[in-house]
Amino acid sequence: MKLIAFDADDTLWVNEPNYVNVKEKLCELLAHYVDQDVLTDRFYDAQIRNLHMYGYGAKSFILSMVETAIELTDGAITGREIQQIIDTGRKLIDFPIDVFDGIHEVLEILSKDFDLMVLTKGDLFDQESKIARSGLGHFFKHVEIVSEKNEQSYQRILDRYGVAPADFIMIGNSLKSDILPVVHIGGRAIHIPYSITWAHERVADEQLVGKSFTTLASARELLACFQKGSPVSENIN
Amino acid sequence: MKLIAFDADDTLWVNEPNYVNVKEKLCELLAHYVDQDVLTDRFYDAQIRNLHMYGYGAKSFILSMVETAIELTDGAITGREIQQIIDTGRKLIDFPIDVFDGIHEVLEILSKDFDLMVLTKGDLFDQESKIARSGLGHFFKHVEIVSEKNEQSYQRILDRYGVAPADFIMIGNSLKSDILPVVHIGGRAIHIPYSITWAHERVADEQLVGKSFTTLASARELLACFQKGSPVSENIN
Repeated sequence: MKLIAFDADDTLWVNEPNYVNVKEKLCELLAHYVDQDVLTDRFYDAQIRNLHMYGYGAKSFILSMVETAIELTDGAITGREIQQIIDTGRKLIDFPIDVFDGIHEVLEILSKDFDLMVLTKGDLFDQESKIARSGLGHFFKHVEIVSEKNEQSYQRILDRYGVAPADFIMIGNSLKSDILPVVHIGGRAIHIPYSITWAHERVADEQLVGKSFTTLASARELLACFQKGSPVSENIN
Repeated sequence: MKLIAFDADDTLWVNEPNYVNVKEKLCELLAHYVDQDVLTDRFYDAQIRNLHMYGYGAKSFILSMVETAIELTDGAITGREIQQIIDTGRKLIDFPIDVFDGIHEVLEILSKDFDLMVLTKGDLFDQESKIARSGLGHFFKHVEIVSEKNEQSYQRILDRYGVAPADFIMIGNSLKSDILPVVHIGGRAIHIPYSITWAHERVADEQLVGKSFTTLASARELLACFQKGSPVSENIN
């Protein structure tokens, strides 16, 4: 049996724009202290520096915002202002989930013939909450939330379910997390790019040389992919 | 094949005292603003209020400390003081893991005859880091980190591994999270109490009426439990 796994954020539903919005609110809140470009750079530095301490997700993002605000104001920022930052960041924890067009139909059809999995990285609590809020949970036989998507974590999941890499198909928007590690372990990958990609998820073109995967314009095109006789399906079915 | 699962925090290693220490540091840092008893009560309220937003774990604990400090100082606390709180809380993310006496030996012996699992609730990133830092990871065939330990989450894990409740044994320090839900779904449970239990994990005595499980004084007693012929082993082997 083939296993089809979907990334969640920016593959099943809109995510990154929510983070961009909150970062813009942070710039507004701190506008009287610091220039927007400086803030953007230093906030990104804090996020990357904190990854090994906090991991991904909303709580990590909030803590990095607070630390950056304190750092850039030399500690002069008040508790009241920090609470405003936290309140802004909390929107990342319960925003309404905006499922992409076509996803519902695609999952409904594919779930009849295949075992579907959500395979996402990030904060366990965050991601479980988003799956629940999306109303898509019942289409997925399995949910796997990992702290990092790399060759080891994909291999561990395939081992757990007894699935050979050749029978595994990963669908996602991130070349770095969803496509390259899967191709490297011998799985198949379908890339559906999203308009906004967090800088940390970008890869250089040369990393793609010699790699085979399918790119689609939108989730709607997935159904054709899994129909026998389609050019793409030779690799997939 | 029987599956033996161990809770992690305060079962395999010392955890709660680290949180108690950090909370005491918070009291010291805020001593000139607020009375210790008031702080303790309000901080607990914030933790419980935030559970559905942040879940368990170090990042959640840090955010609840910051919010409580802002609330109790009416926003007058400075950014510099908040950074001190965050720095104190960060100790929860990389403290050295103090494995309980006897655990290493018990895992070494049991892992020869049984599939062992770490089954812990909390923050994914946090818990993975603690398992890695403990040096115990190689004894466990499986690691499952869940956002909440209740009957549903235990049943989901047993289904995933195809293990019948009667073949499942859970070992842990929390009656609420490790013992009662397992007994309720027909599994076996071994309670090894720890000296400090977070208020949120305590259960009333009447909840224990009619429930069967084994209580041990320390992990060292586990080996006798799994030896054939021991009084406890009748239920376990």
